[in-house]
Amino acid sequence: MNTVYSRENTRKICIGNSEMGGDSPVSIQTMWKRAIPADKEVLLKELRRFAVLGCNVIRFAVPDEENARLLAKIAPLSPIPVVADIHFDYRLALLVLDGVHKVRINPGNIGADWKVKEVLSKAADMGIPIRVGINGGSLPRKLRELPQLEGMIAAAENEIDLLEAQGFRNAVFSLKSSSAENTIHVNRRFASLWDYPLHLGVTEAGPMIPGIVKNTRALLQLLGEGIGSTIRVSLSAPEEDEVVTGREILREAGLRAGGVDIVSCPRCGRSEFPVHELVAQIQEELYAVKKPLTVAVMGCVVNGPEEARHADIGITGSGNEAIIFCHGELKRKIPMDQALEALREEIREAVEE
Amino acid sequence: MNTVYSRENTRKICIGNSEMGGDSPVSIQTMWKRAIPADKEVLLKELRRFAVLGCNVIRFAVPDEENARLLAKIAPLSPIPVVADIHFDYRLALLVLDGVHKVRINPGNIGADWKVKEVLSKAADMGIPIRVGINGGSLPRKLRELPQLEGMIAAAENEIDLLEAQGFRNAVFSLKSSSAENTIHVNRRFASLWDYPLHLGVTEAGPMIPGIVKNTRALLQLLGEGIGSTIRVSLSAPEEDEVVTGREILREAGLRAGGVDIVSCPRCGRSEFPVHELVAQIQEELYAVKKPLTVAVMGCVVNGPEEARHADIGITGSGNEAIIFCHGELKRKIPMDQALEALREEIREAVEE
Repeated sequence: MNTVYSRENTRKICIGNSEMGGDSPVSIQTMWKRAIPADKEVLLKELRRFAVLGCNVIRFAVPDEENARLLAKIAPLSPIPVVADIHFDYRLALLVLDGVHKVRINPGNIGADWKVKEVLSKAADMGIPIRVGINGGSLPRKLRELPQLEGMIAAAENEIDLLEAQGFRNAVFSLKSSSAENTIHVNRRFASLWDYPLHLGVTEAGPMIPGIVKNTRALLQLLGEGIGSTIRVSLSAPEEDEVVTGREILREAGLRAGGVDIVSCPRCGRSEFPVHELVAQIQEELYAVKKPLTVAVMGCVVNGPEEARHADIGITGSGNEAIIFCHGELKRKIPMDQALEALREEIREAVEE
Repeated sequence: MNTVYSRENTRKICIGNSEMGGDSPVSIQTMWKRAIPADKEVLLKELRRFAVLGCNVIRFAVPDEENARLLAKIAPLSPIPVVADIHFDYRLALLVLDGVHKVRINPGNIGADWKVKEVLSKAADMGIPIRVGINGGSLPRKLRELPQLEGMIAAAENEIDLLEAQGFRNAVFSLKSSSAENTIHVNRRFASLWDYPLHLGVTEAGPMIPGIVKNTRALLQLLGEGIGSTIRVSLSAPEEDEVVTGREILREAGLRAGGVDIVSCPRCGRSEFPVHELVAQIQEELYAVKKPLTVAVMGCVVNGPEEARHADIGITGSGNEAIIFCHGELKRKIPMDQALEALREEIREAVEE
């Protein structure tokens, strides 16, 4: 089975001012993990933070009418397109369509045909795309006895039939399993059959470590085969961790240039330099840099000075003294307690250069 | 260029009571990140903890004679083989050889021939293997002008010449770069040339997220090609995170069976169940389980009950009530504040079954 529809020849979908599918760059999504805050400034501040870290699209669960109305009102203010995630209740979909940029809803979950028709016709009138999300763990009852791959493809086919029966093709699909391997196989199969853009992710992937490993495996494999137009890394961890993981995966896939490459040592008994602490204090600032920069934070005399020398900016030190290299040249010697501030200054300067 | 020496046909090396290379299972290593504690019970307790999490080999930096003597004394008590990491000073190597199970030292760094001879002849007499570690960031000065791949292979060749000139072949090699891509290429090249077992890792890979992504990329690729007999994931994070990442990578590579697969949801605005908190509280216990088990911790009514049902043990809930499923059947309803303890009990029971 070959990929027929690789990224470039999937249909292009517009989500607010941004695009997904076709030749548009692979985007990064995350999902808001709490209740939608009543104070919209609190929310918008967080969304701006996610955007700076590289988030392109944000999704919100919409459990009830109150949240649907709130989200429709807030969405137009968001710095990045907003997706409403709705299950079962077509009325919530109708409400959010008044403000959001995309709706994730499975027509197969909505019920009666007239409800599906009503949602799709409003979405079509407003030019708002739908994401259909097939999850291996929650297939329609009648498909649960099939092998997961077959069940997921059959579920996708049913959803496509429901959409296309209404002439609706402004859609993105996701096929997620909690197994990286199944996620790879089912997306390959989908891409051999249909030209809808694919939203990739391993679902319920677990906490940080197993979640990052599973998503890296599945997403790098698929992206490397030309499959996938947008990604979301699901982790039992904060939104920013999902965004940063997504970025690093796209960078390793060669699909996202720029940003800081942090070269930092694991620390060992030789280390006299507070590598972990310094990296922890500065990493969010580093992740926010768009310019391509290599920043080395090194702890020991074995690899330290040499790696620090190769980097655009490198810091290492011992005893009471820290040293900063820029583009291979010793630039500053500072007391250890000024290391963080000095590194910040050098990064700011390099960004402005 | 093809892999000539895949894992199975590399030479087998003995490290204390365990083996590396040939048909032995791929082992997981980490490195002690602080000074060696004076109180050996403090250290041994930590080493036992790492071993339970899946660590097979532990390495210590040996910066001076005091540490060399201390490590030689402690190593025989360790629950897992101990590697001494030594740079430049052949006297430290001679001291640690009286107790440790492997020495990481580059003959090319030791200096005069007679020093190299003395170290290798003592190691040979005692049957203790040497790991030679080539790092892209700290190549010998005369090789630094070459492209990284060529420089690293030339450095490895020099080290092999020095070893083999003494008839010493009881060695493991590592070729680490801070770039995942270079790490892949250089190890492929080494495996096409020599039959020494390879210790894999991306060096100075950065903090948790980029570090896990880079290591997952490089190690899954190489292991999938049959390259690599032991792995170490370098992270600017605690030892246990390196071990757990190593395990998850081996599991995804199909090279390590058993252990818990945590299926846990990322949480969203629908979630009424404290998924992140519960997973954080129980993950180390879960990582310590050797039996193959799927444990699902799910937050919402959309995917929750269904995923929880598929798992060996699943927990979800809302409001004041948590529910536990075992092997697809509802087993317990408990008040939310007893969820953690009840999950612990079910895991213990499943492990003893």
